[in-house]
Amino acid sequence: MIILARQQIEALMDYDLAAEQIEDAYRAASLGKVNLPPVGHIVLREHDGDCHIKYGHVEGDPVFVIKVATGFYGNAARGLPSGNGISLVMCARTGAVRAVLHDEMCMTDFRTAIGGAVATRLLSRTDCERITVVGTGVQARRQIEAHARLMAGRRLSFQVWGRSAERAGLVAQDLSGSGLTVSATEDLAGACRNSDAIITTTASSTPIIEHNWIRPGTHITAVGADAPGKQELDTELVAGADRLIVDLTSQCEDHGEVATAIRAGLVESDRLVELGAVLDQRAPGRTANDQITVADLTGIAAQDIAMAKMVVAAYQKGQGSGPE
Amino acid sequence: MIILARQQIEALMDYDLAAEQIEDAYRAASLGKVNLPPVGHIVLREHDGDCHIKYGHVEGDPVFVIKVATGFYGNAARGLPSGNGISLVMCARTGAVRAVLHDEMCMTDFRTAIGGAVATRLLSRTDCERITVVGTGVQARRQIEAHARLMAGRRLSFQVWGRSAERAGLVAQDLSGSGLTVSATEDLAGACRNSDAIITTTASSTPIIEHNWIRPGTHITAVGADAPGKQELDTELVAGADRLIVDLTSQCEDHGEVATAIRAGLVESDRLVELGAVLDQRAPGRTANDQITVADLTGIAAQDIAMAKMVVAAYQKGQGSGPE
Repeated sequence: MIILARQQIEALMDYDLAAEQIEDAYRAASLGKVNLPPVGHIVLREHDGDCHIKYGHVEGDPVFVIKVATGFYGNAARGLPSGNGISLVMCARTGAVRAVLHDEMCMTDFRTAIGGAVATRLLSRTDCERITVVGTGVQARRQIEAHARLMAGRRLSFQVWGRSAERAGLVAQDLSGSGLTVSATEDLAGACRNSDAIITTTASSTPIIEHNWIRPGTHITAVGADAPGKQELDTELVAGADRLIVDLTSQCEDHGEVATAIRAGLVESDRLVELGAVLDQRAPGRTANDQITVADLTGIAAQDIAMAKMVVAAYQKGQGSGPE
Repeated sequence: MIILARQQIEALMDYDLAAEQIEDAYRAASLGKVNLPPVGHIVLREHDGDCHIKYGHVEGDPVFVIKVATGFYGNAARGLPSGNGISLVMCARTGAVRAVLHDEMCMTDFRTAIGGAVATRLLSRTDCERITVVGTGVQARRQIEAHARLMAGRRLSFQVWGRSAERAGLVAQDLSGSGLTVSATEDLAGACRNSDAIITTTASSTPIIEHNWIRPGTHITAVGADAPGKQELDTELVAGADRLIVDLTSQCEDHGEVATAIRAGLVESDRLVELGAVLDQRAPGRTANDQITVADLTGIAAQDIAMAKMVVAAYQKGQGSGPE
């Protein structure tokens, strides 16, 4: 049995390999080839915490994965992160435990960022260079890193905006140090008006991005709204987009950005196209340079399975043993 | 984070401490103080396997527990056990992972055996000495060990019966070696007629024990029937018992021995008494020496929580650190 801690997992992180696995995960999910039972959930009322258990199996895979994620909202006051997590990689042939990945939620952060970069790479214009990033948390940083790696052939420059200008400045400072072109901005509307792509990563429950800031040809990847009640884009922007791409239609109909537009009667479900279908060329993505495209990503368990597989494969490669 | 493998867990096993924790678990479950969300379940059709995820929290406990158990029925042909398992002990205050217990199902075996011995100790006559054990698997062995430890003040002798006389002989031989009085029998009816208590541990789906073999004053602990469709006691025996004790009424109404009698219209649910209520003296157990008492135990997640807590406590005691 393999046991890996967070630092080991971070050191094994391979963006390109993870992106391949995550693209396969979107394809499999879109083809209905992922067995995903209902998410388990327990609330620990005494301590303002909860725990989600997501688990599933991709048809034909040698492993299945159980991901445990906790959120305890009193942790911040103790100087601890509110999120935590551990994943179990189980043999799909014998039921034995193959790996315990005590990632403390870093795998969730990675898979969300890579999902975003996969979507932007696929749906933005081929000359996309200027990207606005909304939010200053871990996910904003991870999105910038993932986009820079997965779109390495382009000359990307990032502008970061957050409610705290100071935090935005820190993100720019930290990431510029690692060779990326990242600056902070206090003018969100102006940044959006001059962007080829926009990535939203906040937990906002009221819209931050207005439709009249968005010029034709812009792509938007929205990863912040992962639960009912969260919204980063105004409803007109979603309703007016030329292409609406989602990670999983059934989930986005009541979780993400498009859910609000559907409830308002401004978007019909049949307009939604799954990312896996576009990756598979079963459905078109962007079909013209002046289209506004929106990728609404709520995060799916198939991505968690993909990340866990990537980490175990990278570990085994380092040990000189083959997969399985 | 504590990580323990099967051998370490077996070495930490403390029957008396586990029995105390498991009695508390029955009490808490019976008082509705255990938060037990629905059991998670995934089927791996390609390999004739499945996986259950049981999780829960006892009100006021510093930890909650997630138990993963797999059953892969093609393993036997490969010389592997069909069952496997791992438990996660999580901090109920912060959500952090406190312990990973890779018990490979031994904790489930222990908690089932201790539950059985707790019931027999509580419900059999005070002069109970002769015990018949039905079945020759791991659980038969564990039940004998647990009864011997928890009823150490009595002069217990065990007779083991199984469909295979050879396997029954092996159980007797192996356990006699460890200082217990254990013999094999090929006459199940005769053994039952001369027993003070009977423990059934098989996965039978047709009754093995007939009501006309059971004399007044006998106690029966039935742990084999843990799923709908399993039955070890004939329906007349269950219906005619003077006291029907269950681990969890809601579960036993459609899982265990009494479920069959209820479906046949021979037992009303209001006759069922929970073990936790008897332990708490909120309900009577045996009230006369000539009563036939039946304990129908289907196994509850609160026992798994109790076992995991006991193992972590024993480990921490050995390390010289206090609980939490």
